[in-house]
Amino acid sequence: MSVETILTEAVTVTDAALERLLPGPDAQPHSIHRAMRHSTFAGGKRLRPALVLEAARMVAGNLPEGVEECGAAIEMLHTYSLIHDDLPALDNDDLRRGKPTCHVVFGEAIAILAGDALQTTAFQTLAHLKCPATSAVQILREVAIAVNTGVGADGLAPGMIGGQVVDIESEGKKPTAELVEAIHRSKTGALITVSIVAGGLYAGASAEDVARLRTFGEKLGLAFQIVDDVLDLTQDSAQLGKTAGKDAATDKATWPAVYGLEKSIADADAMIREAYDAIAPWGEAAEPLKTIARFLVERKH
Amino acid sequence: MSVETILTEAVTVTDAALERLLPGPDAQPHSIHRAMRHSTFAGGKRLRPALVLEAARMVAGNLPEGVEECGAAIEMLHTYSLIHDDLPALDNDDLRRGKPTCHVVFGEAIAILAGDALQTTAFQTLAHLKCPATSAVQILREVAIAVNTGVGADGLAPGMIGGQVVDIESEGKKPTAELVEAIHRSKTGALITVSIVAGGLYAGASAEDVARLRTFGEKLGLAFQIVDDVLDLTQDSAQLGKTAGKDAATDKATWPAVYGLEKSIADADAMIREAYDAIAPWGEAAEPLKTIARFLVERKH
Repeated sequence: MSVETILTEAVTVTDAALERLLPGPDAQPHSIHRAMRHSTFAGGKRLRPALVLEAARMVAGNLPEGVEECGAAIEMLHTYSLIHDDLPALDNDDLRRGKPTCHVVFGEAIAILAGDALQTTAFQTLAHLKCPATSAVQILREVAIAVNTGVGADGLAPGMIGGQVVDIESEGKKPTAELVEAIHRSKTGALITVSIVAGGLYAGASAEDVARLRTFGEKLGLAFQIVDDVLDLTQDSAQLGKTAGKDAATDKATWPAVYGLEKSIADADAMIREAYDAIAPWGEAAEPLKTIARFLVERKH
Repeated sequence: MSVETILTEAVTVTDAALERLLPGPDAQPHSIHRAMRHSTFAGGKRLRPALVLEAARMVAGNLPEGVEECGAAIEMLHTYSLIHDDLPALDNDDLRRGKPTCHVVFGEAIAILAGDALQTTAFQTLAHLKCPATSAVQILREVAIAVNTGVGADGLAPGMIGGQVVDIESEGKKPTAELVEAIHRSKTGALITVSIVAGGLYAGASAEDVARLRTFGEKLGLAFQIVDDVLDLTQDSAQLGKTAGKDAATDKATWPAVYGLEKSIADADAMIREAYDAIAPWGEAAEPLKTIARFLVERKH
């Protein structure tokens, strides 16, 4: 199966689920529902939902009914984090995927609340999953930890908000290898990893298989962010659909800033090979996930 | 049992749960965990947790083990909504419960992310409740709907964020009775109602009993907000611990603005009597909830 086929299916089923799960643009109050939709339907590639779908398909042998709602929930969390990251008080970005960001169109107050509501709707969606309640609760726990600050009732774990905080607070400091890896594992890696774990849990994966999926996700997540760092240095804004060269200009903690461009590209390749190894036990059935992984390190935007 | 006894117990068990559930002030990254704690431990009366505890006690006949974590989760959601409401882009409040607000102490970026993380930690806590998974999922659904925009997969329902949006967008317009009731039911009422419903669900309440609890909560929530409106008009900032007279100054949609002060006070009293009726079937066991309700309409700040 080609990566185009895999990603096209992911976009189709995820967008249909998001369309169904989010309030319509004419639902009252209009502004917030339109703001939520503006950022949700801004041309995202639905990579995380694709990982949910293909992990579930690999574990179950076919696509389990309703798993696309799990992918849609994770996409809502990704979208909420982008809306809040783009705010003037944070990254202050006017452009995202080539379109004006949420606060530029709807104002800061509505953008803050739209992000809040996307987080809420994501958890609401997970609480309505069509899998056994015990699996749904397990997915909810994993997802919550992945988007949290990295510390909680469950001990230390990479968390999206924690990564964002460390990223903000490390600007202007000289990035160390430990710092960059911690930020990448938290800010991007945790949500990518949990996409694969959640897909597996939805399909009824054993604890052993969940551990394999988690390793695959951790390697893939780190490789994905390294490639993002490389593209920020090597591509222009038109190709990226967002402001290029911003990481270097703001002294962001990136992989190339620590290791240089050449080693960064080699590291991403090596991590993808380690990711492949983790899901080798599934044999042929692992091909779609490997295809997505290969696409993510070879992409140009 | 006196209201002081009830509320003191609620503060004690809720604060102990929050202390356990939130990352410590020295957990990395410091700033966000200190910001979450600054607003969580700012002297809140723990009214919503008290309602969770007493609803559960009334239904079960005693306090079910671990129900305080459900109350703590709802208090986290209440705190997150206050942090975001106080931001410069929203209500722009520097003072809350007599203390500087989160963004004044920690800056806007950390305040936005601290609110986000408190929402996440609330859902994470609910996904770890010590009740059967089917009850936990039901509580998660009810709570998510209550803090959402008021429309979703489950159809129309009052939702906290929706109430906040309508409140912002109605400033400067002449408030109508329908508008004020819609805002009050959503912005404050939904979270108060779900506190009582969640306590009941935790204790294993039947669908019929959940309906009774919901009616009690709806009446109480509306009365509570009417009293808040009245206090904003009649008390000064020192008594309230926040800026007084702000509603009138900003033309907020309030009950007294539509019905006048005298009828507002009478309406709140009438609603509390209707609330009592809804839980009358529990007889003597309903006394603690009725005591809290009476306290809420007779309070002076």
